[in-house]
Amino acid sequence: MPKVRKVLVLHGPNLNLLGVREPQHYGAETLSTINARLVDLGRQRGVTVEVFQSNREYELIERVHATLADDTDFIVINPAAFTHTSVALRDAISGVKKPFVEVHLSNVHAREAFRHRSFFSDLAVGVVCGLGAKGYEYALAYALDYSVPEAPQQA
Amino acid sequence: MPKVRKVLVLHGPNLNLLGVREPQHYGAETLSTINARLVDLGRQRGVTVEVFQSNREYELIERVHATLADDTDFIVINPAAFTHTSVALRDAISGVKKPFVEVHLSNVHAREAFRHRSFFSDLAVGVVCGLGAKGYEYALAYALDYSVPEAPQQA
Amino acid sequence: MPKVRKVLVLHGPNLNLLGVREPQHYGAETLSTINARLVDLGRQRGVTVEVFQSNREYELIERVHATLADDTDFIVINPAAFTHTSVALRDAISGVKKPFVEVHLSNVHAREAFRHRSFFSDLAVGVVCGLGAKGYEYALAYALDYSVPEAPQQA
Amino acid sequence: MPKVRKVLVLHGPNLNLLGVREPQHYGAETLSTINARLVDLGRQRGVTVEVFQSNREYELIERVHATLADDTDFIVINPAAFTHTSVALRDAISGVKKPFVEVHLSNVHAREAFRHRSFFSDLAVGVVCGLGAKGYEYALAYALDYSVPEAPQQA
Amino acid sequence: MPKVRKVLVLHGPNLNLLGVREPQHYGAETLSTINARLVDLGRQRGVTVEVFQSNREYELIERVHATLADDTDFIVINPAAFTHTSVALRDAISGVKKPFVEVHLSNVHAREAFRHRSFFSDLAVGVVCGLGAKGYEYALAYALDYSVPEAPQQA
Amino acid sequence: MPKVRKVLVLHGPNLNLLGVREPQHYGAETLSTINARLVDLGRQRGVTVEVFQSNREYELIERVHATLADDTDFIVINPAAFTHTSVALRDAISGVKKPFVEVHLSNVHAREAFRHRSFFSDLAVGVVCGLGAKGYEYALAYALDYSVPEAPQQA
Amino acid sequence: MPKVRKVLVLHGPNLNLLGVREPQHYGAETLSTINARLVDLGRQRGVTVEVFQSNREYELIERVHATLADDTDFIVINPAAFTHTSVALRDAISGVKKPFVEVHLSNVHAREAFRHRSFFSDLAVGVVCGLGAKGYEYALAYALDYSVPEAPQQA
Amino acid sequence: MPKVRKVLVLHGPNLNLLGVREPQHYGAETLSTINARLVDLGRQRGVTVEVFQSNREYELIERVHATLADDTDFIVINPAAFTHTSVALRDAISGVKKPFVEVHLSNVHAREAFRHRSFFSDLAVGVVCGLGAKGYEYALAYALDYSVPEAPQQA
Amino acid sequence: MPKVRKVLVLHGPNLNLLGVREPQHYGAETLSTINARLVDLGRQRGVTVEVFQSNREYELIERVHATLADDTDFIVINPAAFTHTSVALRDAISGVKKPFVEVHLSNVHAREAFRHRSFFSDLAVGVVCGLGAKGYEYALAYALDYSVPEAPQQA
Amino acid sequence: MPKVRKVLVLHGPNLNLLGVREPQHYGAETLSTINARLVDLGRQRGVTVEVFQSNREYELIERVHATLADDTDFIVINPAAFTHTSVALRDAISGVKKPFVEVHLSNVHAREAFRHRSFFSDLAVGVVCGLGAKGYEYALAYALDYSVPEAPQQA
Amino acid sequence: MPKVRKVLVLHGPNLNLLGVREPQHYGAETLSTINARLVDLGRQRGVTVEVFQSNREYELIERVHATLADDTDFIVINPAAFTHTSVALRDAISGVKKPFVEVHLSNVHAREAFRHRSFFSDLAVGVVCGLGAKGYEYALAYALDYSVPEAPQQA
Amino acid sequence: MPKVRKVLVLHGPNLNLLGVREPQHYGAETLSTINARLVDLGRQRGVTVEVFQSNREYELIERVHATLADDTDFIVINPAAFTHTSVALRDAISGVKKPFVEVHLSNVHAREAFRHRSFFSDLAVGVVCGLGAKGYEYALAYALDYSVPEAPQQA
Repeated sequence: MPKVRKVLVLHGPNLNLLGVREPQHYGAETLSTINARLVDLGRQRGVTVEVFQSNREYELIERVHATLADDTDFIVINPAAFTHTSVALRDAISGVKKPFVEVHLSNVHAREAFRHRSFFSDLAVGVVCGLGAKGYEYALAYALDYSVPEAPQQA
Repeated sequence: MPKVRKVLVLHGPNLNLLGVREPQHYGAETLSTINARLVDLGRQRGVTVEVFQSNREYELIERVHATLADDTDFIVINPAAFTHTSVALRDAISGVKKPFVEVHLSNVHAREAFRHRSFFSDLAVGVVCGLGAKGYEYALAYALDYSVPEAPQQA
Repeated sequence: MPKVRKVLVLHGPNLNLLGVREPQHYGAETLSTINARLVDLGRQRGVTVEVFQSNREYELIERVHATLADDTDFIVINPAAFTHTSVALRDAISGVKKPFVEVHLSNVHAREAFRHRSFFSDLAVGVVCGLGAKGYEYALAYALDYSVPEAPQQA
Repeated sequence: MPKVRKVLVLHGPNLNLLGVREPQHYGAETLSTINARLVDLGRQRGVTVEVFQSNREYELIERVHATLADDTDFIVINPAAFTHTSVALRDAISGVKKPFVEVHLSNVHAREAFRHRSFFSDLAVGVVCGLGAKGYEYALAYALDYSVPEAPQQA
Repeated sequence: MPKVRKVLVLHGPNLNLLGVREPQHYGAETLSTINARLVDLGRQRGVTVEVFQSNREYELIERVHATLADDTDFIVINPAAFTHTSVALRDAISGVKKPFVEVHLSNVHAREAFRHRSFFSDLAVGVVCGLGAKGYEYALAYALDYSVPEAPQQA
Repeated sequence: MPKVRKVLVLHGPNLNLLGVREPQHYGAETLSTINARLVDLGRQRGVTVEVFQSNREYELIERVHATLADDTDFIVINPAAFTHTSVALRDAISGVKKPFVEVHLSNVHAREAFRHRSFFSDLAVGVVCGLGAKGYEYALAYALDYSVPEAPQQA
Repeated sequence: MPKVRKVLVLHGPNLNLLGVREPQHYGAETLSTINARLVDLGRQRGVTVEVFQSNREYELIERVHATLADDTDFIVINPAAFTHTSVALRDAISGVKKPFVEVHLSNVHAREAFRHRSFFSDLAVGVVCGLGAKGYEYALAYALDYSVPEAPQQA
Repeated sequence: MPKVRKVLVLHGPNLNLLGVREPQHYGAETLSTINARLVDLGRQRGVTVEVFQSNREYELIERVHATLADDTDFIVINPAAFTHTSVALRDAISGVKKPFVEVHLSNVHAREAFRHRSFFSDLAVGVVCGLGAKGYEYALAYALDYSVPEAPQQA
Repeated sequence: MPKVRKVLVLHGPNLNLLGVREPQHYGAETLSTINARLVDLGRQRGVTVEVFQSNREYELIERVHATLADDTDFIVINPAAFTHTSVALRDAISGVKKPFVEVHLSNVHAREAFRHRSFFSDLAVGVVCGLGAKGYEYALAYALDYSVPEAPQQA
Repeated sequence: MPKVRKVLVLHGPNLNLLGVREPQHYGAETLSTINARLVDLGRQRGVTVEVFQSNREYELIERVHATLADDTDFIVINPAAFTHTSVALRDAISGVKKPFVEVHLSNVHAREAFRHRSFFSDLAVGVVCGLGAKGYEYALAYALDYSVPEAPQQA
Repeated sequence: MPKVRKVLVLHGPNLNLLGVREPQHYGAETLSTINARLVDLGRQRGVTVEVFQSNREYELIERVHATLADDTDFIVINPAAFTHTSVALRDAISGVKKPFVEVHLSNVHAREAFRHRSFFSDLAVGVVCGLGAKGYEYALAYALDYSVPEAPQQA
Repeated sequence: MPKVRKVLVLHGPNLNLLGVREPQHYGAETLSTINARLVDLGRQRGVTVEVFQSNREYELIERVHATLADDTDFIVINPAAFTHTSVALRDAISGVKKPFVEVHLSNVHAREAFRHRSFFSDLAVGVVCGLGAKGYEYALAYALDYSVPEAPQQA
């Protein structure tokens, strides 16, 4: 099976505040530092890593739609608050049928009860939470080793 | 009672992917094909049928607000994923007090539990689901026969 | 795929009172008027439409059983109160494996909470509710256009 | 402790319809009339009152983010429909750590069950509901008397 | 307001076993003895009291339908097991819009949890339970004193 | 078995307002008129009927305690709002082991959900609701015919 | 204790379709084949085995009532869909106080959630499910070995 | 519409401890200081403000009853712990049909789950919580501006 | 840390009936016998033990308030029925910030479901139930050994 | 399809006490008597029946694991208390993919609510309960007649 | 009735860590110190006190089974984590029919929600929690005073 | 802060079957292969990695206890089935106060509902699931980079 050639990393709402907002939950690094590291990790493996953050649900949805036309093979997504509320983003990612890993910087299981429900986890390949920015790196590492099935048909 | 002169057909998020996304749930026709047929059905009856799709909650809300100023008499809406999450769109449609029929392409009752709750059904005149693109036609047929009350006051 | 040749329209308990009982929910037309129109719609398309109403759960069950021997291809059913209580009728319709559309005259989503659960919807092709007697016509229209699969296997 | 110098008043979706939509719930005054009075109340006390309405979740989120850079000391927010659905807006307001009062024009406790849950109340200093446009004035009055802690650390 | 002229007393399934089945719950008197006393109480007041028992849901439904044509002014009903399961009988009695009192021989509140829900109580004028066969007499006494509104409109 | 010689009729909080408060729920008669009729009904049968109303939970509790020392054989109680909240009154009536009938003027099953739970019904001989002031008379009639067991042992 | 002399085997609704309906759940044997084997098993032990199937709730109820007059000592019952809905049949079987075993051809625990509740299991001696038509044989074998208590008093 | 002439301010149990009990929830001011300010605010507007605190449910109930005879036009009530438990006080205030605002010193939404349910909010004109003693002032300000309807009929 | 010098023992409603009411749950000793023993146990250790029983919620509340002025160091409380219903008594004991042990004579876990919830247990130092009157002695023994923190601050 | 050659009968915790513990639930026979009969039944059919009881979850798990290496074709298991608590034993039996029947001596449906949930029933071929030690015999009889599929793939 | 001669004190998993693990919940004393005191208390009263700790569920079960053969009259048990998960240990202690008191060092009612359910409390004579190691002493004191019934039959 | 020197990797029940049991959930690699890779990864970083698998809850508990005496700085644990059932293992790991990451080979969010609850996640630093054996590697990578706080005090 062929290897992954392009990975899309999606960051949901408020993640532009990383390094500012509630560091006890999200760490002190900024998003651009994290993104730079992820792009570099991809480059080392000859894989394009594209990063995208938005506070707008529709921008995330339409970025996901666009993967039908570009050559994205895998998605790493931290839906942030949309994890718990956006059926529309779920439907988008389900519709394009790309494999994805869900990432959360903080341990959502140790926070408010409404954060225990995700509209993404049951569709994801896997979930990483609580490991801070390293969670993105592990998810990306997984993606870089992922073998793309000939005819993708993730149910 | 006067007849309907203008019908607005609203399509929610991801419906731009029709014909691409999960055809086992949504069928293989594209949205523009469906829309063309709906506009044509209106024309045969001398009624303006306007169609509008958006992945953006606010655009749908503001399109609904605009019906206060244009001469829309009836709304056919497939809120898609917003069916289950958007109180804001519900409030918009409730606020303009236009009669509407809710349409779903797939049979939501046979899918995930979170799709069994709608923020629209209790306000709608009626609901059609599971009949594919024909569901829009039935809803439109109903609208075309609808008699506009003199002083609309849908509770 | 061959077209439908016979459609059975089933009406559940209390629907014999149509035009008498609670017109604000069910409309002022009588059942025989509605039935005549449905039979006529079938005749225009060269399809037999048979109608049957009963207040007796077992008569509805046994009428469904009889479709195994006659040439019924599609069922339109308004189970009325049995929608919410009759597993036996569900099992009958599930057992004969005929495709069906569920119809409700009133918008059940805007009524008592116990009317929000249906023992039929998850098995149905689709559901139409709140559109009054026209709901039957739309369901029938759908049936008349339905293509019977060679080897029916509704899950 | 120093006094408040700037208050941001945020209005959520559909509030642009004030005076039009469901006056039995929201009153007959328009939003601009209300806003003018609030700005004036601030001026009398030498405090800047900035008002902002949007039907767009991301605009509200980003307006909240912007308080990190401007000198907003207190927020008065009527999240309207987003009260019950927007974890993203909650996370924004929680992230910037500004004290805020939540306002509702209507008495949400006397309306639909889904309006009884707020994603904001547990983080707010307090909540005012059901007192119409005066609710904003009381919330602003509270803000104008509020003493800003030296090192804000609202948990 | 005119007085009641005819009262229908309905007994649901298994009540033909009265005096045989579980006397600790239902007492030792037979149904015919009870019925005779009820008819006699009516006769003393110049009111026709008709009694009817059936184990068949449809017979009870159709007996209720028949009150549209005969001159029944009031119904006393012990739906027995159908109390907890028959939406169809509820719909029948709701459809004919006759005032009724619900009677249970035993105290349903002291029995199995599934007996705590009634599909009739919220529509009834009142409910009497646990007072044995006397419960019927009190319900009938109430009916005999009942004033029929000119234009019945039980909500 | 000996007959009842003394019946205590207890009225809970707010019932002193009868004839004033919410007549659509509670009727227009005053409590003293009702009480006079109950006392008179007892006198006709040679039975003492004592009536007692209080808005104070402890007075009702202590009045129930006092039945251990006086010769009360039966209690008719309308606990009013305490129906749904007073475990202490339940414990009192359970402790003195007197048979009792629970009465409600209005049909509690047709009102707010919190009125559907009673701390008394599972201990009562029976319950009468929705029949207005006549409910007391029926409960008293039942009490007057009640045979006191030699060794009372209501579980 | 005397041995059983007569066993009644009851089959609920839709079981007349056995061998036709959903063989993956219910097996391919017809009901008459199964019944013949059960009658024969009884004959070998000198015990009358009577079989009865109905789609009509009242016929099952009245067949159960009839056991008060014939010499039935034990009942084997597959209530089919009535398992989950018929309090009336439960009351009938509870009223005649005959010991019974509940049988299901399919494993109800592996099917829809609404099939997990039975109105019979808590009253039964035992339950057999998922073992196909053999389940009837095991239940009958148990009945044939059952010792009838002198004074039956199943609680 | 005429203006309010008399306002009754009711304080529930434990509020006599204000300034002593849990100042992090309730503030450091004593109740008499707060009351003095409220009375004074009324006097400035020519309105009688009467204050009343009790730890006794019945005293609060009977004080509410008394408003039927005195000229109270509006009630401001902090039911304190009775918020969550007293149906009797709810019934009293519902019975006298006076408009009222519910006040809580602390933000009940940020405290124990049992404090999230109020027996008063759905009947109130509005609710103010979390704004400390100022909450009373805002509620009183609202009352002082309130227009008494000619024929009060708060449902 | 200094030792306890005064312990208050509070008994809730109906406990004045001890020895009379339901001895299978509460034992046959009277309250005064129990109280005498507790006072004596304190005297042996040089500690004042004051006992107080009331059926009146407000008397218990106000007795708790009074501990702010007398020198009570510890409370032993059996709230009886108020355990499950009195937020007001909870607030009182929480407000005065005295350490306390909750005692129940019977094993509440083996009784009705509504007795499984306590408004006191989460604030108590500990709970003793089911050990009859000895439960008071153990709680008192614990109190007599208790070391009073210098600055009490039970959260 | 080949017949079964070896059946493993597993008994869970406390079943070593059979004949001692709660005979009203479990019967008076000892486990060794039951086991001897089961082994003998197998021998008559030329099938090895191995029996194993343990109070240790891990011994049961590892005995199940061992079936991967020995020639066990079918398992009869009474998980006893582990029925309701052991996901680990469920995972073991699910992992080795052997068909099994679940047996309970007592009728778990007539006991405590926590016994109504089984971690095994949805995976089992079938379930027998309430028929005492005979339940094992019926399960074994079923196993002895079972045809082993060529490539077992129980989902 | 004869007095107790032997008491078994059982300690569940992790209690071997006492004095090490989470002293804020469990205190700083080691288990052997506590055990020594308990044995000594027994000796003073001429009663054998045997102590036993295990992290192994089966060892606790089998130690309970062994009480059928030794002369244990009473059990004091701290099931620790097994309180909330072990039906098997519950069944063991229920099977041997020994009276027992359940002890918890910490106040389980003030901890995680899953600690609020016990599989033991409804069978226990009583429960002591939150009183640290003294809880064992009170439970033992109770046991030492316990009168063994002639024919034990704890339901 | 000093770096980690020793990591303990714990595998729960049934994981010894890896490569055998349900490869669609758990992958085809054996546990020893995985373990070898983990040990090697540690060696490359100069960190001791110890691996331990058991089907015995107590062995896992006691292995966790042993970390108090050896120099384990971090735990990587896949509790397998115990994730959902073992409060005892939770208490052990909470008691020793070592930081840990929870790993699941399969995506538990896409499996049975009972696998959605974990007794470990709220205490963990983070959770990795669905990434197969790589999940262990990511967790270990995180551990190898972890800085041990001077005075560990994970709440």
